[in-house]
Amino acid sequence: MAKQLSGAGLRGQVAGKTALSTVGITGSGLTYRGYDVKELAEKCQFEEVAYLILKGKLPTEQELADYKARLRSLRGLPQALKDVLERIPKDAHPMDVLRTGCSMLGNLETEENFDQQQDVTDRMLACFPSIICYWYRFTHDGVKIDVETDDDSIGSHFLHMLHGEKPSELHAQVMHVSLILYAEHEFNASTFTARVCASTLSDMHSCVTGAIGSLRGPLHGGANEAAMEMIEGFTSPEHAEEEMLGKLARKEKIMGFGHAIYSDSDPRNEIIKMWSEKLSKDVGDDVLYPVSVRCEEVMWREKKLFCNADFFHASAYNFMGIPTKLFTPIFVMSRLTGWAAHVMEQRADNRIIRPSAEYTGEELRSVPALKDRN
Amino acid sequence: MAKQLSGAGLRGQVAGKTALSTVGITGSGLTYRGYDVKELAEKCQFEEVAYLILKGKLPTEQELADYKARLRSLRGLPQALKDVLERIPKDAHPMDVLRTGCSMLGNLETEENFDQQQDVTDRMLACFPSIICYWYRFTHDGVKIDVETDDDSIGSHFLHMLHGEKPSELHAQVMHVSLILYAEHEFNASTFTARVCASTLSDMHSCVTGAIGSLRGPLHGGANEAAMEMIEGFTSPEHAEEEMLGKLARKEKIMGFGHAIYSDSDPRNEIIKMWSEKLSKDVGDDVLYPVSVRCEEVMWREKKLFCNADFFHASAYNFMGIPTKLFTPIFVMSRLTGWAAHVMEQRADNRIIRPSAEYTGEELRSVPALKDRN
Repeated sequence: MAKQLSGAGLRGQVAGKTALSTVGITGSGLTYRGYDVKELAEKCQFEEVAYLILKGKLPTEQELADYKARLRSLRGLPQALKDVLERIPKDAHPMDVLRTGCSMLGNLETEENFDQQQDVTDRMLACFPSIICYWYRFTHDGVKIDVETDDDSIGSHFLHMLHGEKPSELHAQVMHVSLILYAEHEFNASTFTARVCASTLSDMHSCVTGAIGSLRGPLHGGANEAAMEMIEGFTSPEHAEEEMLGKLARKEKIMGFGHAIYSDSDPRNEIIKMWSEKLSKDVGDDVLYPVSVRCEEVMWREKKLFCNADFFHASAYNFMGIPTKLFTPIFVMSRLTGWAAHVMEQRADNRIIRPSAEYTGEELRSVPALKDRN
Repeated sequence: MAKQLSGAGLRGQVAGKTALSTVGITGSGLTYRGYDVKELAEKCQFEEVAYLILKGKLPTEQELADYKARLRSLRGLPQALKDVLERIPKDAHPMDVLRTGCSMLGNLETEENFDQQQDVTDRMLACFPSIICYWYRFTHDGVKIDVETDDDSIGSHFLHMLHGEKPSELHAQVMHVSLILYAEHEFNASTFTARVCASTLSDMHSCVTGAIGSLRGPLHGGANEAAMEMIEGFTSPEHAEEEMLGKLARKEKIMGFGHAIYSDSDPRNEIIKMWSEKLSKDVGDDVLYPVSVRCEEVMWREKKLFCNADFFHASAYNFMGIPTKLFTPIFVMSRLTGWAAHVMEQRADNRIIRPSAEYTGEELRSVPALKDRN
């Protein structure tokens, strides 16, 4: 006899073990392998955190230098993959582009056995920015960009390809912070997708392809895009307040606030908010950041809802000239680390994830002849 | 406080509701929307069962004729998709090809809203055989086949493209039976992958792409391929018995026997076994079918393990000249109906699937400076 249905969506139901992160435990907000994400975002580069999540420890100076050099060497795209990206229309959903790019990569550089799991993950970490920028620049600007740059970091590589010039120190720094904040978040829906796939002992590209598809859903990734679309319509803090109150009165869904797991605040918000403010000053903005701050005030005053990681990401990315439709692909470049580490963890102690269902359908009945149906 | 971990792999844990099927309930084996799969396999064409699963009722004569005509009209592939398939190497995993083909289709014919869910599913049902055969014939035979045939059914369309000639009545019939048997199976790992993805309100192509990736795993799909690889090495029933006893003595894993949910028998086995016997007589085989029967006898006698749906599928497909590496893609062509119906069911009463994890990692610790690490 199967156990009763727990909360819908398995809410509050333990579905497995992890040593990778804690989310929303009192006093520690969000931790990756025991380190507070706030401290990691303050002191580390993204490549250090990726190394931590994937390989289990913070790298030494030499290990970090070697790892970054290795990732730099893996940025190129096979011609067959470029051919595929050139055939995806300009108006495609960028998450569908990444999903297809990842899946195609799996045909060209298949993970033949699990000994290769770290290598195929490093390769994806290094070339996902190449995939999305190659497609974006080809379809939007008509150019076939060189994806093999000598930029120091994954975030700089991305911005360089997107804008055609090396990013400023500030922008490079914000990309480190942003990629660190999004890197890992326990059994969220995309990560759980990756683990269910991994539990059949499928390959890493299948697991990540599936996770990208889940992150594409508007209830999961994409909240920062929705937040951007909202705030760019506000011309001043006063206008923002008026519009927000109207939305609340009409009970419209407002993206970028509240969280399924955090109850008091999202520990990632104060960090990205601080960097958004710095970027705002850097570009001489006097609308988008003040508007964002007012939205935060109104939501807290009216609904006691706090900003989650996504809300100030919207303005931050915008200040760096990133097109709104590429916000969620950046999330992929980062969360890939968490997905892959969860796949490795699932493989190390695996049982196929195969729950039961409560049947609510028809009782047993016999098949009527074709001519007797209506 | 999160609920305790239930069985590893959520075994026995109810994770949601379904009206689509029952698996292993005493006295009814496997039912689709209340109909016994044995009766469906005896009396129906696959398109009737796909209609039942996807649209909720068995079709009338006219509805079935209309549905089959509609599916026939959707077999063509866009040039951009053919271009992609031509760039996938001959030695790629055919499941990776289907995963990539499905994902690419999502770029070209995106599901813009859920009103289109039946249409995009019908399109996939009609063109998945085209995708796999176009790639297979191009890379293995060097020909660009015409995928728009006038064959009566999905199974015939597949065999026609694969062999370059219309299949016999017997082969067309066996394909109906096989596709019916594999169409739906409650919350198995690939279907659960599709539901987790659907729970973020992602699109149908993402859900199906993810499910293909999960079915690719050797613990899920592929058991019929593994069974084929084993039995084709046996030259006689006596040889099979000797080899099987050796494998059992060495405690080797033998694929095609036993089941996670069924405890006494797999209701699908007796059906496909009967058809495998018919095909054996049709081709004048005096090795593969007797060998398969002997394997079944040995496993039952020695281990009380019964054949599952996959075991006699191996010989049946082989008798129809289907290459072993295309066995699991046929599973996809069929199970697509179950996946899509589960996605629709999830969408109709959704909460994002986001379980919790039991944390087994490091306690909170501070980040050492880069130079102080080892």
